[in-house]
Amino acid sequence: MVLEIINEPDDIKKLSPDELPLLARELRQFIVKNVSETGGHLASNLGDIELTIALHRVLDFPKDKLIWDVGHQSYAHKILTGRKGQFSTLRQKDGITGFSNPKESDCDAFISGHSSTSISVALGFAKARELTGQSENIVAVIGDGAMTGGLAYEGLNNASTLKSNLTIILNDNQMSISPNVGGMSEHLAKLRTSEQYTGLKSGMEDYLHKVPGGDAMIHFLRHAKNGIKQLIVPGMLFENLGIMYLGPVDGHDIEAMTRIIGRALKYQGPVIIHVLTKKGKGYRPAETHPAHFHGVGPFDIKTGKQKAQNEYPTYTEVFSNALVRNAMKNDRVAAITAAMALGCGLAEFKRLFPERFFDVGIAEAHAVTFSSALAEGGMIPVFSVYSSFLQRGFDELIHDVAIEGSHVVFAVDRAGIVGRDGITHQGIFDLSYLSMIPGMTVMAPKDAKELSDMLDFAIERIDSPVAIRYPRGEACIMESDHRSPIELGKCEILSEPKGARVLLFAIGSMVKRAEDAASILKKIDISASVVNARFASPIDKEYLTNAAKDYDVIVSLEENVRSGGFGEHVLSILADAGFDGDFINISIPNEFVPQGSVDELCCDEGLDADSIAKRVEEALGIKEDSDEKKA
Amino acid sequence: MVLEIINEPDDIKKLSPDELPLLARELRQFIVKNVSETGGHLASNLGDIELTIALHRVLDFPKDKLIWDVGHQSYAHKILTGRKGQFSTLRQKDGITGFSNPKESDCDAFISGHSSTSISVALGFAKARELTGQSENIVAVIGDGAMTGGLAYEGLNNASTLKSNLTIILNDNQMSISPNVGGMSEHLAKLRTSEQYTGLKSGMEDYLHKVPGGDAMIHFLRHAKNGIKQLIVPGMLFENLGIMYLGPVDGHDIEAMTRIIGRALKYQGPVIIHVLTKKGKGYRPAETHPAHFHGVGPFDIKTGKQKAQNEYPTYTEVFSNALVRNAMKNDRVAAITAAMALGCGLAEFKRLFPERFFDVGIAEAHAVTFSSALAEGGMIPVFSVYSSFLQRGFDELIHDVAIEGSHVVFAVDRAGIVGRDGITHQGIFDLSYLSMIPGMTVMAPKDAKELSDMLDFAIERIDSPVAIRYPRGEACIMESDHRSPIELGKCEILSEPKGARVLLFAIGSMVKRAEDAASILKKIDISASVVNARFASPIDKEYLTNAAKDYDVIVSLEENVRSGGFGEHVLSILADAGFDGDFINISIPNEFVPQGSVDELCCDEGLDADSIAKRVEEALGIKEDSDEKKA
Repeated sequence: MVLEIINEPDDIKKLSPDELPLLARELRQFIVKNVSETGGHLASNLGDIELTIALHRVLDFPKDKLIWDVGHQSYAHKILTGRKGQFSTLRQKDGITGFSNPKESDCDAFISGHSSTSISVALGFAKARELTGQSENIVAVIGDGAMTGGLAYEGLNNASTLKSNLTIILNDNQMSISPNVGGMSEHLAKLRTSEQYTGLKSGMEDYLHKVPGGDAMIHFLRHAKNGIKQLIVPGMLFENLGIMYLGPVDGHDIEAMTRIIGRALKYQGPVIIHVLTKKGKGYRPAETHPAHFHGVGPFDIKTGKQKAQNEYPTYTEVFSNALVRNAMKNDRVAAITAAMALGCGLAEFKRLFPERFFDVGIAEAHAVTFSSALAEGGMIPVFSVYSSFLQRGFDELIHDVAIEGSHVVFAVDRAGIVGRDGITHQGIFDLSYLSMIPGMTVMAPKDAKELSDMLDFAIERIDSPVAIRYPRGEACIMESDHRSPIELGKCEILSEPKGARVLLFAIGSMVKRAEDAASILKKIDISASVVNARFASPIDKEYLTNAAKDYDVIVSLEENVRSGGFGEHVLSILADAGFDGDFINISIPNEFVPQGSVDELCCDEGLDADSIAKRVEEALGIKEDSDEKKA
Repeated sequence: MVLEIINEPDDIKKLSPDELPLLARELRQFIVKNVSETGGHLASNLGDIELTIALHRVLDFPKDKLIWDVGHQSYAHKILTGRKGQFSTLRQKDGITGFSNPKESDCDAFISGHSSTSISVALGFAKARELTGQSENIVAVIGDGAMTGGLAYEGLNNASTLKSNLTIILNDNQMSISPNVGGMSEHLAKLRTSEQYTGLKSGMEDYLHKVPGGDAMIHFLRHAKNGIKQLIVPGMLFENLGIMYLGPVDGHDIEAMTRIIGRALKYQGPVIIHVLTKKGKGYRPAETHPAHFHGVGPFDIKTGKQKAQNEYPTYTEVFSNALVRNAMKNDRVAAITAAMALGCGLAEFKRLFPERFFDVGIAEAHAVTFSSALAEGGMIPVFSVYSSFLQRGFDELIHDVAIEGSHVVFAVDRAGIVGRDGITHQGIFDLSYLSMIPGMTVMAPKDAKELSDMLDFAIERIDSPVAIRYPRGEACIMESDHRSPIELGKCEILSEPKGARVLLFAIGSMVKRAEDAASILKKIDISASVVNARFASPIDKEYLTNAAKDYDVIVSLEENVRSGGFGEHVLSILADAGFDGDFINISIPNEFVPQGSVDELCCDEGLDADSIAKRVEEALGIKEDSDEKKA
């Protein structure tokens, strides 16, 4: 066992070259075993083990800065930098995180959960290094998937001005989560089959050998200076952007990579090393189904089968079925994803309607603008996207969709607390950032059926921008089978017990919790009405204006931050209506939410039924106290 | 006069080729004369007159779709499509807008005020055209400046998959607003000097002529298929992304452009035509100072001098001086701009501290992430940016700055109502989208001195993310010379008349208006306290909790949308404090704000002192009424 003696960053340098493949094998086993128990990102972490070893042979931690683009590919790095012993706590509450995080280790240079940030980060560090007179190495590792994001391009475009070294490792596994798309991806595919930097394009060389004088040409081209050399060597796209290109190199050959990285670090200026890796490498089920093994729950190592099966369908599945149903009856319905067809529930749509399906790569901003023009061109685009990733398209939501007023449907998945992906992935801002946009209709369903109804409503009954946000995981199945039709800006009254002094006005996932809280309160003889708000924008002003007169305590409930959220809007309407009772805002305090199970985190944030009931009790208690004082 | 007979889109096709240069000259005179009176964007509109004429000779409006990237370059297009007669209303209230706007004319295909959107839009239209069986031509015109934006790259990357025609005109004038930066820009500079598509790189050709067998090589290369051809012709960067490159072509040669555009439209797939234009062409002062003449107020045609001179310094100038002062005493202070050094007040910083100055191009998302890493690397970056453009970096503000917790200072210029640039440029969302971000300190100064003090505070006294938002135009100079020190999360009490029942709790530009409203109210014997909130996050909870007891009417005042804004946060604190008086939220209703002068628009939105005073009067009236009823 080699892994046993690796406890600190420098230990790996003490190994002989012969021991490195053994270390790779042990890391692979360690990661498969651990992730099979904790769940986590698997395929990408199996793909970059040799790359990580090569980087650790060359770099010094924590002095040098290694920036992982989308830090979920940094498991091997975590294990090699003193976090092996805690690895069983991966993605658990208070455990180590599934992403890079400087608060966890000084060997992690920068936070990273979203894609395509690493070049901008590395460039910032490099400029600071120049200005402050430091001398550390700075290396960014970016996947070919992340290269489809505009932020990566903005970084590349700016990198050319750098005078000092910046090494960018392009970890090319031909996948983001789904297989990659677009011109850049096709360019990389061509490079993959080309020879190393010093070689000529072999087709050209073959040709020249046969031409009179061709051998002299070959000699000339081999020794030409940059101008012409760049015309006939791979990586021209990068060289044209002013960045030296090295590669491609086999990403599972530790020795070759160690050599080429060592060479790159000596270069004064930005360098890209094109490394070819295989996603899921060394674990058969992950090699065969890399998209499925991108992120997984606990699974059986032998079969690769996930252990926990859902009892109920997930919201994603409910959305998927509803979308397909709509697309069957209306051939104007199109679907857009930013590299997440599987996660966003578009696999079936893609299979059935390939010509109306668009995977734009990790390019949420483009997806938003593109969808708007699709709509103006006569289609009904449905962009299915995770809440925290849609943040990337915020300006485009305002500028290209809302001002244009186009009928784009945003299916905002993973809204609210997402659990184990933690701080960077919580979808806790969308009610705020969507409802502030003029003309944007914002809905959230209480359960599975309502998601389906809301999608129908958004596609058929609205002709302006509209978003539906729903949580990660199993869909809520309400006891009642009642299904009232969706009306724009109208809430749904679920229960109005006689003499109720308390109103629970809840949206989305909080409706069920409000019902549970009402049950708890009933046991102590407090009657509370439960109303499903359905719309975060426009909120049912008419209902609330009346409610302001009828209730002593009004509670807003949302799985979103308080600032700019549903509750503040509700209070604003109540104030206009002259409400002078007690208002309780149940929401997430304005702090980032760490990782854990959704249930654990909801309790921590006070979003569970018990906490809600307690807040109401307290308010009534206080009110009675003050009434007594007044009397 | 040729321009006289052009009234509808088709009229231009009736002209003989000889008349076209005359038309160009008349358009130029027309634009210079009009903009000298109304103000507007000048240099870019003078640069693309011949290009616009060529496009109009080839395209049919409104059937064909012409998408201007940053619609402020579309004046000639507006004049040629029936808006000549209204041109004196340019950028005036209810007049024609300074940008593309389909609500204004069906010859404008899509809204556009922000940069880099056109390729995504064109691609959306093209896919919709394929799916709906239409056949119109689709042309995007994008500047080389806009090509530095990640959204443009995301569009390009996706364009390669298109099977039908999409013509992208790259209008290359070597400028965004400032001269361009980055690898793409340098690549374009190389292309500028190259020959047309069919030609070989001339250096290579010269060489081959001298080599034995070289002539045969030249013959071969000239007739080679794509694979090798792409290696030796210009535009490889685009060709590598799967997009055919034509050009470069002289952007002031109407005939040459008409030919090349006609050829491009026949191609099945995406094409880029590289057009070389001169910003400000034909008007000497604009040719000489294109950045200054990017956007101007009314000016004297002969001298090029602006007519209106500011009486007081602008907020931008105040910021500029304060930043330079900070940079003099602290060499860790760095400045970042996204292609707007002049507009954002960084010209002097750039001159004095070139090594600490970073113009990243039109790449706000990169600017945010890059700044965060600069901060973590030991610098104190100040990113100066317009409010509506910072929306482009929203996810990066959350993910790369706030979660990382880095000390980046955001100088948010053009916050609030900006006036004549209109709907796409209003900075009316930043108090909402910034204050919802956990850990982000958000300030707004009441006047010039306070902006200066706040910048000192943000640089010296805070070590976490912090934003200061301030309006476009002349800085407010308050009568009082009093300057109380800034304290984190503390408001400043300006006046507390004895017996005041009304509190005006204002932020930023609204403080002066609150004072004016208090003066108006005083005349009718209503005493109102005026408090400068200073912080939108964190808001002074202690002060408000006390105020909840002391006042009958509390008014929040902000130049921002109501949804998620300052007022909703204030109300939320007041509700927690048990406030049972009247609350008035003075803010912009949740609608987009059109163009006009800042004063006109503020009155329309009810933000002026008279409207504020009236709202307070009404509230007191209603309160007295209801008190009477109770009595």
